[in-house]
Amino acid sequence: MSLPPVINLFSKLALVDDHWAPKIVARMNTYHFKVVKLQGAFVWHRHAETDETFIVLEGSTRIEFRSGTVELLQGEMIVVPQGVEHRPMAEAECSVLLVEPSGTVNTGDAPGGLTAPDGVWI
Amino acid sequence: MSLPPVINLFSKLALVDDHWAPKIVARMNTYHFKVVKLQGAFVWHRHAETDETFIVLEGSTRIEFRSGTVELLQGEMIVVPQGVEHRPMAEAECSVLLVEPSGTVNTGDAPGGLTAPDGVWI
Repeated sequence: MSLPPVINLFSKLALVDDHWAPKIVARMNTYHFKVVKLQGAFVWHRHAETDETFIVLEGSTRIEFRSGTVELLQGEMIVVPQGVEHRPMAEAECSVLLVEPSGTVNTGDAPGGLTAPDGVWI
Repeated sequence: MSLPPVINLFSKLALVDDHWAPKIVARMNTYHFKVVKLQGAFVWHRHAETDETFIVLEGSTRIEFRSGTVELLQGEMIVVPQGVEHRPMAEAECSVLLVEPSGTVNTGDAPGGLTAPDGVWI
């Protein structure tokens, strides 16, 4: 067996030159780990089929829910429950590791200009 | 809806006072995120049913495979493939975030003195 690859998350982030477009860095069973840089306001959306995990690698971001807003700092994580509307918003650039099932589209039920192609590895 | 909790991984780690005993910090669908501190040598084992993800939060660890050894530093991750024998080994204490299906036992197919109770939250 060849050795499984070691993935340096910060080296992967250094290759990301856009915002809101998650890039896959690893697969675990039917799930993907994705790095993404956030800046500005995203769109309100929900993922009807799955929870979605955000882990902040650098910077900070807020995530708005209809019932209130949370702030996530470096080293913090949150699991957005399946079906719950949310909107990430980062005043300064924030780097995040997402964990979600493969095939999860970034804008969920709200496709539009910020919808990123799924399945892009970096 | 109440807001989803923000989980500070380093605050959780500060509560961990043992080694090799993963503690659950979050659930995503049927998966758990667990913090664990490694020190010394673990046992050779495999997980017959699942891949297993290691993300290094602090320190460094090696993971031995039958075909060679990888070293993981802070900010690096690896997905150990389903069914592949491995043995973590950390010369100094290393803090890790594990991602794996709920019910995954730390020692896999090699139960013994280092087998930790499953389902413990912190």
